[in-house]
Amino acid sequence: MSNVIPGGWVQFLDKMGDDLDVVNSARISFSKKHEVIKKGDAELIDFLLRNRHGTPFEMVEFMFQVRCPLTVAREWFRHRIASYNEVSGRYVKQQNDNYIPEISAVRIQTGKPGNYHYEPMEDLDKANRLIDKMVSAYEFSYETYEELLTEGMAKELARNVLCQGMFTEFRFKVNARALMNFLSLRNAPNAMFEIQQYAKKMEEYFKAVLPLTHAAFIKHGRVAP
Amino acid sequence: MSNVIPGGWVQFLDKMGDDLDVVNSARISFSKKHEVIKKGDAELIDFLLRNRHGTPFEMVEFMFQVRCPLTVAREWFRHRIASYNEVSGRYVKQQNDNYIPEISAVRIQTGKPGNYHYEPMEDLDKANRLIDKMVSAYEFSYETYEELLTEGMAKELARNVLCQGMFTEFRFKVNARALMNFLSLRNAPNAMFEIQQYAKKMEEYFKAVLPLTHAAFIKHGRVAP
Amino acid sequence: MSNVIPGGWVQFLDKMGDDLDVVNSARISFSKKHEVIKKGDAELIDFLLRNRHGTPFEMVEFMFQVRCPLTVAREWFRHRIASYNEVSGRYVKQQNDNYIPEISAVRIQTGKPGNYHYEPMEDLDKANRLIDKMVSAYEFSYETYEELLTEGMAKELARNVLCQGMFTEFRFKVNARALMNFLSLRNAPNAMFEIQQYAKKMEEYFKAVLPLTHAAFIKHGRVAP
Amino acid sequence: MSNVIPGGWVQFLDKMGDDLDVVNSARISFSKKHEVIKKGDAELIDFLLRNRHGTPFEMVEFMFQVRCPLTVAREWFRHRIASYNEVSGRYVKQQNDNYIPEISAVRIQTGKPGNYHYEPMEDLDKANRLIDKMVSAYEFSYETYEELLTEGMAKELARNVLCQGMFTEFRFKVNARALMNFLSLRNAPNAMFEIQQYAKKMEEYFKAVLPLTHAAFIKHGRVAP
Repeated sequence: MSNVIPGGWVQFLDKMGDDLDVVNSARISFSKKHEVIKKGDAELIDFLLRNRHGTPFEMVEFMFQVRCPLTVAREWFRHRIASYNEVSGRYVKQQNDNYIPEISAVRIQTGKPGNYHYEPMEDLDKANRLIDKMVSAYEFSYETYEELLTEGMAKELARNVLCQGMFTEFRFKVNARALMNFLSLRNAPNAMFEIQQYAKKMEEYFKAVLPLTHAAFIKHGRVAP
Repeated sequence: MSNVIPGGWVQFLDKMGDDLDVVNSARISFSKKHEVIKKGDAELIDFLLRNRHGTPFEMVEFMFQVRCPLTVAREWFRHRIASYNEVSGRYVKQQNDNYIPEISAVRIQTGKPGNYHYEPMEDLDKANRLIDKMVSAYEFSYETYEELLTEGMAKELARNVLCQGMFTEFRFKVNARALMNFLSLRNAPNAMFEIQQYAKKMEEYFKAVLPLTHAAFIKHGRVAP
Repeated sequence: MSNVIPGGWVQFLDKMGDDLDVVNSARISFSKKHEVIKKGDAELIDFLLRNRHGTPFEMVEFMFQVRCPLTVAREWFRHRIASYNEVSGRYVKQQNDNYIPEISAVRIQTGKPGNYHYEPMEDLDKANRLIDKMVSAYEFSYETYEELLTEGMAKELARNVLCQGMFTEFRFKVNARALMNFLSLRNAPNAMFEIQQYAKKMEEYFKAVLPLTHAAFIKHGRVAP
Repeated sequence: MSNVIPGGWVQFLDKMGDDLDVVNSARISFSKKHEVIKKGDAELIDFLLRNRHGTPFEMVEFMFQVRCPLTVAREWFRHRIASYNEVSGRYVKQQNDNYIPEISAVRIQTGKPGNYHYEPMEDLDKANRLIDKMVSAYEFSYETYEELLTEGMAKELARNVLCQGMFTEFRFKVNARALMNFLSLRNAPNAMFEIQQYAKKMEEYFKAVLPLTHAAFIKHGRVAP
């Protein structure tokens, strides 16, 4: 379990396959197979990535467990070529657990919609004050939630008052091709800071499992094949 | 634009195809084609649905625009065989617009997780009081959001304090097969009340566009093929 | 490697996950987790299957290698929620290797299109004669293919003369939910005999990896959730 | 119906949406909408394509009917984000209708697997002779097929002797994003000649329906977003 933001983490649960599976899946086109990674295999992977032959990369699968704020999860679940199971706010009483950014992550935006730039808030006292405001809203919302539950309101309705900074938890299963798509979009300078932190950590796991594939991914501009 | 809950609506934007396209797409298996719906076509559609021959139903496409609370949208976006474009809270200042249930929709839950039953709250004064509490939480959150923005915090970070009952808006494009899956799960007694209201309205549009398919869907237990 | 028809086989290559992963992926909805399969887990899996809660079954992944005739592969590749890599007839000279049915698999059809029944050909001498005819066509086609290649024609064009009974080979990676869909359609009485044999063998692997899931799948009418 | 190779054609059947839908689907991120294409819309589409914001292009849908050889169809059906319905060789007696290339399409290959170059066969007499050989194989196969049927063999088994150059027919429904992926891979110099001809024709329809999107697709290197 690796913390990536305060209260948020990624856990690598399992994987199936490695660079050799990519190579052998591609080589099946030529009716060939290697028992171990050999000379030429890195070049083949490089060739596949450069020419957008994506299917051999689907042969490797990853499973993660993730704890992140809803604002992050909402972006995450837009990635449809993946499998998800998530804590249900209909069945489980949500915990009083919301995302409180580090002071260095309190940021302002400049520029135009679609092309924002983000900079840290220089006035740290002010940043601290804004964090306190966030916490107050979280507290007010959660207290209301608890009151509504105490009064008997169904959880699925009462959760409307909870904040979008609330942490949720889910399993995320994804193949290496779709994971590269995720990394190219989310471990990118214009992605939201928080989802970037998750994507950075996942890219470490990706690199550890598929070092040759990762090298080719970097070399060819971080574009998913 | 059809209101389905206070502040929430579904708008039917466009469609491609009709029952005849289902029939002709199925009949291509037999190298046959009809110019108009004929005797036997209702039976063919019934046969396809009953035997789970799903692909001919993919040949009809729907496009909707939807305005719903995040708690509804979060369930909605789990449907992966569909296309979505949504208002972005990174680019747009969110409006002070949250889901306030009708008094009849204020409900309690009984039973065990995974098998809840919901009943209206009988004490209407209490229900009204709880709605007021919800509104207070919405107000507190939105005021905090505005303060954070005024102080210069980036929208993508400030939105964490907004409530999950906040309305969002999106386009939803889906084929008839995937739409039947949506309807079977969401226009169902154990679905969340609010998403049921959306699904009911969408089922009206579905029925209007595909009357024979809808009849077969009903007849065979509302199971998507 | 398990032979399923003469010259055709399925090889189980790898898997990720087991019944416990299904259970834990489902239990994440309730924020719960088991370290080993416990009392109640079979019931949970049964509940998930019966109520078509399909996503926990996506958390288990299978990888197979398959050698089958094109007539089988063509049906197989209609299953889109899966990953494939196949021998390429553009890059590799195809082998003289075609599907020759066992005499017991030589069959006649009765009934109407969409509702055929198949029966073995009772006249075994005749069946043998027909097999010989098939082989003659295979031979004529393959000889022509080799002549075309010898004369310099590109493989991608020359392969048009090869027969549809030609064996191809591919990797097939699929999650347990999509695999159940495959099994429900292909290990079924009205499926083509040859693809049934593949599906039967794959169901053995499926049962070995996911005994509780398989039991529930059988119990609830072999319908994929 | 437009002929693209001898005996093979593409028919444009229907579409839903246009460039304005792309624009409005993208603008929903900013809570904006245009009633007609305006100044700035071409730039927005260009921006979306350049930055791989793919989802707005999913909002436009195409439906085609296609008649092509199995060797082409086999490549085609690898495109999984699409819907298909095809003539069934289990239910319908196949026609004696196989792909006979034009003399200019008889080609030789040079270079190494994965990197072939194709050139027309210069000796036209020889090319004509090879075409005759193809036809002979087609004829021998089809005659055998008919004999097998006459003798009572089930169609699904007898079709194994038919050639891979046999024409099949199917409906193909696809959104504009997935269609661009198809065009980028199949209307490309290293694609098989025959599928290129289909892709070229479909690109004409694509351009006619989505002129601004097509212009951006060309400008940015024919990479699907």
